[in-house]
Amino acid sequence: MADEALFQFLHSEIIQYVNSAETGESENGRCVSKLENMGFRVGQGLIERFTKDTPRFKDELDVMKFICKDFWTSVFKKQIDNLRTNHQGIYVLQDNKFRLLTQLSAGKQYMEHAPKFLAFTCGLVRGALSNLGVKSIVTAEVSVMPACKFQVMIQKM
Amino acid sequence: MADEALFQFLHSEIIQYVNSAETGESENGRCVSKLENMGFRVGQGLIERFTKDTPRFKDELDVMKFICKDFWTSVFKKQIDNLRTNHQGIYVLQDNKFRLLTQLSAGKQYMEHAPKFLAFTCGLVRGALSNLGVKSIVTAEVSVMPACKFQVMIQKM
Repeated sequence: MADEALFQFLHSEIIQYVNSAETGESENGRCVSKLENMGFRVGQGLIERFTKDTPRFKDELDVMKFICKDFWTSVFKKQIDNLRTNHQGIYVLQDNKFRLLTQLSAGKQYMEHAPKFLAFTCGLVRGALSNLGVKSIVTAEVSVMPACKFQVMIQKM
Repeated sequence: MADEALFQFLHSEIIQYVNSAETGESENGRCVSKLENMGFRVGQGLIERFTKDTPRFKDELDVMKFICKDFWTSVFKKQIDNLRTNHQGIYVLQDNKFRLLTQLSAGKQYMEHAPKFLAFTCGLVRGALSNLGVKSIVTAEVSVMPACKFQVMIQKM
């Protein structure tokens, strides 16, 4: 519980700080991209530690399952609730109670702030995949808080 | 281990980002003070959770012992190694292997960067104490990495 709280509070502070530091024309976009970049590097670092003793992955789907189970549990204390794929390089990871959104009120009025709360995690997934040799684009969308979908589009080399 | 790594990576990212965002004349001072402020708010939040079910503290020393044992263990996975006080409002908390310094090389050449790696934690302690009703000034110093001393000066009302 302690660690969860530490991560949550730290994550909020970062959003707040980056948001206030990035002032300018397209400040919102820059804020989101800075957060995404931070997530990317953290994801790269984390996945190295997590996979230190795991056997080699069979294929892309095997990698995605690892992200949904082991990786997600380590970071967010729960698994992804649903993983779907079109078997053509698109994966949708659904978390019905995404931990970094649970602090936000569930009303629609905060919906516009959701991207800031998801950017770090998009980067986290992209960074983790990247260090497993899978190049991707990760986006997120919220329909009803605190549920959330992450879409991973694999970039073929 | 996962949580430790997450906190460490995130902490490094914050330092790097704040450091690059705060450009100007006294950038180093501002960077440190921004980090200290973040730590302060995180410390305030954390201590509320940690002390939810603990009995009321007897006195100031009792509060400090809680910080050195329970609080430190939750955040840094180890206790403070040595607590000293002059019984006049000054406490020195020594950590012989401070976790946020262990990533830095132990050589003297990185000594000048140490303040950035300690500022968040100074704020963390100040914020925790503040929410326990103890107003303080917290500073840190490193003589040999990764050992580190935090000095807490209680501000009497």
